[in-house]
Amino acid sequence: MGRFITFEGIDGSGKSTQARLLAEHLHADGHDTVLTREPGGSPGAEDIRKLVLEGAQDRWSPETELLLFTAARRDHLERVIDPALERGAIVICDRYVDSTRMYQGIARGHQREQVDALHDLMVKRDPDLTLLIDMEPKRGLDRALGRGGDEERFESFGEGLQARIRQGFLDLAEEFADRIVVIDGNRQIDDIAGEIRALVTKTLA
Amino acid sequence: MGRFITFEGIDGSGKSTQARLLAEHLHADGHDTVLTREPGGSPGAEDIRKLVLEGAQDRWSPETELLLFTAARRDHLERVIDPALERGAIVICDRYVDSTRMYQGIARGHQREQVDALHDLMVKRDPDLTLLIDMEPKRGLDRALGRGGDEERFESFGEGLQARIRQGFLDLAEEFADRIVVIDGNRQIDDIAGEIRALVTKTLA
Repeated sequence: MGRFITFEGIDGSGKSTQARLLAEHLHADGHDTVLTREPGGSPGAEDIRKLVLEGAQDRWSPETELLLFTAARRDHLERVIDPALERGAIVICDRYVDSTRMYQGIARGHQREQVDALHDLMVKRDPDLTLLIDMEPKRGLDRALGRGGDEERFESFGEGLQARIRQGFLDLAEEFADRIVVIDGNRQIDDIAGEIRALVTKTLA
Repeated sequence: MGRFITFEGIDGSGKSTQARLLAEHLHADGHDTVLTREPGGSPGAEDIRKLVLEGAQDRWSPETELLLFTAARRDHLERVIDPALERGAIVICDRYVDSTRMYQGIARGHQREQVDALHDLMVKRDPDLTLLIDMEPKRGLDRALGRGGDEERFESFGEGLQARIRQGFLDLAEEFADRIVVIDGNRQIDDIAGEIRALVTKTLA
């Protein structure tokens, strides 16, 4: 079996950049590396993602949205993540179940219990290592809003919610202390990337 | 609260015809009546239905398909069934969770446990009365195949599976004896409709 590494953090925290830099480094280092992201990551999951993100804000209830995202994750797992892990690859995923614990568990209704139950029932796969890029909510929000794009829906929650989600992620890091490592994202990109490389190299040894 | 009546049975059993005849009768009798069907029944659920039924047969795994159908049911419940029940209407639904117990629980993988767990976690609403139109598998299959249409995917399972699903439905009728009534579908349409009308009239009294 390979290794499954996920990146988490609030919008604008730089996690996508760091996921890409780590994947490039591992690939250059000769590792079979797969870089993917959620929601989406497989053709079926991308179709479900489109269904969720398109249309009016109230098109889906929090409960239906959670079921759709869980369906997308199951497809992504079966078609991309598990086959890669089985051939021994390192899979790097930008957002995974911890984002669902925050966005569907805290931001959209109070469904943490349902998120966990659905994960245990229909997904089951946990990451070996999760890198939580921690950042000041104000700074993350400015960066996210400056970037635009189709994530807008999730990035329109404002600073108060960003602060709650940041704290929620830090609480998750304590709850899953065996796999979540908090990385200070309020630094230069290269410094952060260097710390992550050192950490992952140690994990792979 | 109104009443929630579902129709179940193998493909070609005549349940859609009987659901329509009952709805017409109740409407003519002055009842606020809503006739709907699954999978689908609300704009969002119809979009999910399309996603599931379009594309290659192996586009979705049984597990992903179950999650998508549960998402569709949740949407249908929130947008159509529950609002109608809350205003006191009689809701008649052509297929509901018992079909999922058969098609996703028996025909597509062995997911009965997951079907029940998802229903208890994310849907919860059970019918007040379920009319199971029982029919010889051979006869149902001939009728279903003669009709064609987009149900083809589920109707391509053949007689052996139809027989297993028929038996599965009869077993469900014993398991949920408090709400499922078995109706002999091997008769003239009007005779069956008459029995159903009498039964429902008694239930509504």
